[in-house]
Amino acid sequence: MAPLVGVIMGSDSDLPVMKAACEMLEKFKIEYECTIVSAHRTPDRLVEYARSARRRGLKVIVAGAGGAAHLPGMVAAMTPLPVVGVPVKTSALSGVDSLHSIVQMPRGVPVATVAIGNATNAGLLAARILSTSNDALADALEAYAASQRDEVLGKAEVLEGSGWKAYLERKEAPKSTTVM
Amino acid sequence: MAPLVGVIMGSDSDLPVMKAACEMLEKFKIEYECTIVSAHRTPDRLVEYARSARRRGLKVIVAGAGGAAHLPGMVAAMTPLPVVGVPVKTSALSGVDSLHSIVQMPRGVPVATVAIGNATNAGLLAARILSTSNDALADALEAYAASQRDEVLGKAEVLEGSGWKAYLERKEAPKSTTVM
Amino acid sequence: MAPLVGVIMGSDSDLPVMKAACEMLEKFKIEYECTIVSAHRTPDRLVEYARSARRRGLKVIVAGAGGAAHLPGMVAAMTPLPVVGVPVKTSALSGVDSLHSIVQMPRGVPVATVAIGNATNAGLLAARILSTSNDALADALEAYAASQRDEVLGKAEVLEGSGWKAYLERKEAPKSTTVM
Amino acid sequence: MAPLVGVIMGSDSDLPVMKAACEMLEKFKIEYECTIVSAHRTPDRLVEYARSARRRGLKVIVAGAGGAAHLPGMVAAMTPLPVVGVPVKTSALSGVDSLHSIVQMPRGVPVATVAIGNATNAGLLAARILSTSNDALADALEAYAASQRDEVLGKAEVLEGSGWKAYLERKEAPKSTTVM
Amino acid sequence: MAPLVGVIMGSDSDLPVMKAACEMLEKFKIEYECTIVSAHRTPDRLVEYARSARRRGLKVIVAGAGGAAHLPGMVAAMTPLPVVGVPVKTSALSGVDSLHSIVQMPRGVPVATVAIGNATNAGLLAARILSTSNDALADALEAYAASQRDEVLGKAEVLEGSGWKAYLERKEAPKSTTVM
Amino acid sequence: MAPLVGVIMGSDSDLPVMKAACEMLEKFKIEYECTIVSAHRTPDRLVEYARSARRRGLKVIVAGAGGAAHLPGMVAAMTPLPVVGVPVKTSALSGVDSLHSIVQMPRGVPVATVAIGNATNAGLLAARILSTSNDALADALEAYAASQRDEVLGKAEVLEGSGWKAYLERKEAPKSTTVM
Amino acid sequence: MAPLVGVIMGSDSDLPVMKAACEMLEKFKIEYECTIVSAHRTPDRLVEYARSARRRGLKVIVAGAGGAAHLPGMVAAMTPLPVVGVPVKTSALSGVDSLHSIVQMPRGVPVATVAIGNATNAGLLAARILSTSNDALADALEAYAASQRDEVLGKAEVLEGSGWKAYLERKEAPKSTTVM
Amino acid sequence: MAPLVGVIMGSDSDLPVMKAACEMLEKFKIEYECTIVSAHRTPDRLVEYARSARRRGLKVIVAGAGGAAHLPGMVAAMTPLPVVGVPVKTSALSGVDSLHSIVQMPRGVPVATVAIGNATNAGLLAARILSTSNDALADALEAYAASQRDEVLGKAEVLEGSGWKAYLERKEAPKSTTVM
Repeated sequence: MAPLVGVIMGSDSDLPVMKAACEMLEKFKIEYECTIVSAHRTPDRLVEYARSARRRGLKVIVAGAGGAAHLPGMVAAMTPLPVVGVPVKTSALSGVDSLHSIVQMPRGVPVATVAIGNATNAGLLAARILSTSNDALADALEAYAASQRDEVLGKAEVLEGSGWKAYLERKEAPKSTTVM
Repeated sequence: MAPLVGVIMGSDSDLPVMKAACEMLEKFKIEYECTIVSAHRTPDRLVEYARSARRRGLKVIVAGAGGAAHLPGMVAAMTPLPVVGVPVKTSALSGVDSLHSIVQMPRGVPVATVAIGNATNAGLLAARILSTSNDALADALEAYAASQRDEVLGKAEVLEGSGWKAYLERKEAPKSTTVM
Repeated sequence: MAPLVGVIMGSDSDLPVMKAACEMLEKFKIEYECTIVSAHRTPDRLVEYARSARRRGLKVIVAGAGGAAHLPGMVAAMTPLPVVGVPVKTSALSGVDSLHSIVQMPRGVPVATVAIGNATNAGLLAARILSTSNDALADALEAYAASQRDEVLGKAEVLEGSGWKAYLERKEAPKSTTVM
Repeated sequence: MAPLVGVIMGSDSDLPVMKAACEMLEKFKIEYECTIVSAHRTPDRLVEYARSARRRGLKVIVAGAGGAAHLPGMVAAMTPLPVVGVPVKTSALSGVDSLHSIVQMPRGVPVATVAIGNATNAGLLAARILSTSNDALADALEAYAASQRDEVLGKAEVLEGSGWKAYLERKEAPKSTTVM
Repeated sequence: MAPLVGVIMGSDSDLPVMKAACEMLEKFKIEYECTIVSAHRTPDRLVEYARSARRRGLKVIVAGAGGAAHLPGMVAAMTPLPVVGVPVKTSALSGVDSLHSIVQMPRGVPVATVAIGNATNAGLLAARILSTSNDALADALEAYAASQRDEVLGKAEVLEGSGWKAYLERKEAPKSTTVM
Repeated sequence: MAPLVGVIMGSDSDLPVMKAACEMLEKFKIEYECTIVSAHRTPDRLVEYARSARRRGLKVIVAGAGGAAHLPGMVAAMTPLPVVGVPVKTSALSGVDSLHSIVQMPRGVPVATVAIGNATNAGLLAARILSTSNDALADALEAYAASQRDEVLGKAEVLEGSGWKAYLERKEAPKSTTVM
Repeated sequence: MAPLVGVIMGSDSDLPVMKAACEMLEKFKIEYECTIVSAHRTPDRLVEYARSARRRGLKVIVAGAGGAAHLPGMVAAMTPLPVVGVPVKTSALSGVDSLHSIVQMPRGVPVATVAIGNATNAGLLAARILSTSNDALADALEAYAASQRDEVLGKAEVLEGSGWKAYLERKEAPKSTTVM
Repeated sequence: MAPLVGVIMGSDSDLPVMKAACEMLEKFKIEYECTIVSAHRTPDRLVEYARSARRRGLKVIVAGAGGAAHLPGMVAAMTPLPVVGVPVKTSALSGVDSLHSIVQMPRGVPVATVAIGNATNAGLLAARILSTSNDALADALEAYAASQRDEVLGKAEVLEGSGWKAYLERKEAPKSTTVM
């Protein structure tokens, strides 16, 4: 089946962050492709990728980049598809630069920006977008939310039952659930 | 026809900003509803609105709020629909607080955030999302992009022809096209 | 005895930070409960918790969360109790996002915000609040302040007596007293 | 009756901001006093005020200051009462300096910080604190929340009924309800 | 003569800022062209402009943009010419977003960034760049620096002679010389 | 008498801010000189001024500048005198750039930095420095602090006597005393 | 001999930073005392220390603190002596909070602020202040500057002689000279 | 051959960052010199270096510094050559202070600023500047861009071929290509 979502990033150094978008798409059994498109090093590829996306059957593009992160906005300028932008954390400015470069788009060309480094949510947002015309997917998203809820309720029950001291002393350190 | 997009805001003081989303939806002939839902003053209404949204046939929710802007994220927590968040500019922190409160959502609950105060792009993003299952709308979005391009090309031609001094001296001050 | 203070957090990953509030409440022998309430993953639980809090006899709620930290403000929207908010430090924005999401509440719904990561002070603030109708507790708080003072005076005396070089060379590295 | 709340500020230039705390206390019929205590210009008065506050029957202190805003924290250091801090907006840094100076208190001395310039919420927070031992006040706070809710519901009804264009065209510009 | 410098901007709303670059180029009698190239609205024009710049004889490109300012960096990605970037001030973030989007370029594609809104310096920097192969221009730049120096020395002499009170009372308000 | 304090600024556009330093020095009858020294436009003058300052009998230099404010630090690099730096507010970054450029000096070359735009305090700091060898001046500074105290006490008395409503309604708007 | 400089800090956890001020004072053979004065934990001691400082013969006070750093400003409010403030780096906000709390003092009460964590410069600034009435000390400060210069010139010579590759490969990693 | 580019830095502690500029110049076979010039410790050397630069045949100066980074701007004030500034990352403020001190130059004296810590781009910018009068160098820069492009295309091919899981599991961790 042809991919519905294109997950792209400015550099393979972004892959450890961006893979979370892929994992989420797999979780919801959404066909996707994953590759590198650098706005600054492969501008022709950028044009080609963005211009052909709709024609090739893509429905959503998830684009991650860091620093002067031009990839999501430039893709959005050349396709009518919704583009989800992931600001990748940077060493000097912690991704504030990436966030500004992605979210502060001028009128006319929107990028759907998620939290710094939160490619999981980019994958989920792509799924939510696709679910607007796919009831089964919307049901799956509701089920996912319910499983998240249940996981928290389960932890809450343990915490209330054991008290916080015992909870923290358990062999396994508590798995972070919400951390960014 | 039932509305496909819900445009909501935390206070009627946000309406002068948020109306741009409505205007954009009207431009693309997308049915929408527009109302006030305050996360902090009408939490029951918040729950009711978010929980019923999918059932009522909404496909996208556009939510604007300022300061500790909890509306978009709380709505996103209670619906599988894609939620577009508009950080409204604030007097002390210029909307940086709104941006942080909207974009920095934890893993599991995405909000598609646009630029501070840029409700135009929120409307456009809703249209892009709907266009993933509506080819005519996608075509209209491409036509819109073409018209934006032509407007810029027209201005560029005038500027190149007249020189910048004459351009600035024209009776009508130049209409801003990209400003945020 | 029924708990007077509810210490809640958005995720069990916040517990290593939030436990300091519990410790402080124990120090002052204040009954409390400690659990997880996620605004985004368990919104129904959030409503239930906040709405029932006063009825259940709670007097103060201490709520910690990070990133787009909606928990303290949403709880405050659904209870007349004073809510103390703890902005939990985040990896990209160091808790500035949490601080903005918690402190910048709109008119009508206050959250009593403490320093980033400073759950100790959240516990103390809860104690101060309870002490407004509990003279013994107010006395205990004054005694606590006196003990803090004495600890500093003791250290100052050692430092003045030994000089800073000897002070730093002591086997035990100096215990931090004020650090955040 | 002796005042229960002391509303103090570093300068009479803060009064146009801080008066909102007084108005809120009056709304809830809470006895208060209102005066100027400058940490930097009247340090002896600061000590005297803070040290005598509990003895004089005060239950809560609301303190507003701007810039290097030391008043709330210094008062909190010399009384066991809960101290609510209001960061006053400044011309160069918009109150970010005030916020940092007030909220980032070290372990041991909490200040209950509200949003920049939001003295209304400081007054409300004082009322919430007092309501922990005053059921009638807690009821009044719930009634206040209900009236806020009803005001929003009323506006939402008008907005939904008339549409946003008519709403904005009404003679009276919409009254801001949540703005900071 | 063919233009040596291309002054481009993302929107004609940037012209009131960017004209200062043109004025400076005129002052040094450097041939230039001035036009609009929007990265987001006219991406094809962007490619065409950048790709053809060297071939057309341009030596330097001065590019101004605001918000998610992708123009300077995208041009720099498609030409070997030095590109000078001018971050245009924005309403919500005062140009910090523009600055981040322009200066934080990844390794491999530099943009020579000047101060927020300082198109004068962009013109001067273009002149300095051209002067590396044009001794007369370098001499003119030294003469310009000398004239700046003399203007300050003249003002200093007046200020020292008259005293600051008289200086401020002169009919003509002091002309700002260095302000940004 | 030869001046003891040199008040310098990078541009005459800084004079409306910097004059407050002169006024304070006059208040304490301290001889001073006031002139323009631009680090960037008159670098030779900068060297000459800084290198000769001690020899000419100056004891303290007060230097104000905005943006990339190099004047105070460069002067401090060429004299052993204490240099007081005043970060002048700028239009885009509100003086945060000035503050960073002045206060963040490397080890070995200190600048005594005051608040953004607070030249009054720069004058006072110069007076405090001179008072370390001038008991009469120290006495005058104590008297000044007492007068500040008395002014606040007077206002507090009026405010307490009349209540805040009457205070605000007085014909004369309250004179700001502490504002920055 | 009685100490001329008081080096104080809010907590012994600040000592590893503040000791650099002591070292610098020792280098210039300036008598000093070093102790802990916590504005928040030992407010009485704060008053006593500040009020008695001039009488006890101190000429300068160096005060370091972190977070809501009230120590330097409160001391400055109760003494006519020049107070040098050292913003100590904090974990969440890197000392930006400390800097704001120390430098943004209101008109009337200056604090001579140095760079975040730069106690070396605080010691040097104290020395510069004392040198305004001590020519030998001023000479020593000039000699110190000369030695700093010579150290840099020596390194520059080695770097130019060996090339940067050899310079970096030398066994001893280059000693940082200016780093903050 | 005489050097065309001077690579200077405020301290040898900046060399591990600044060497990347040297490496890039070597890659393009551009003669350069590399040394230390401290604005604050060797101001005479600063004047001498900047004043003699053009006469000695330099065409571009690359200057790196951190904190209150005055070196690039002061050099630019004393030479007509283009000066490229590299803001070196600092421990407390991550180089935001360096960036502000370098990029926010007043009108009349430009510094071509690159990203925080990105000396690679400073070297490349120097090469681009020199290429304006050296066609072979411009060709080499285009070839370099092509090689960058090919490297990305190669990686993209591998990633698309193997899938992201295999890509990440390869023995060699992916080489970062764009990271800042």
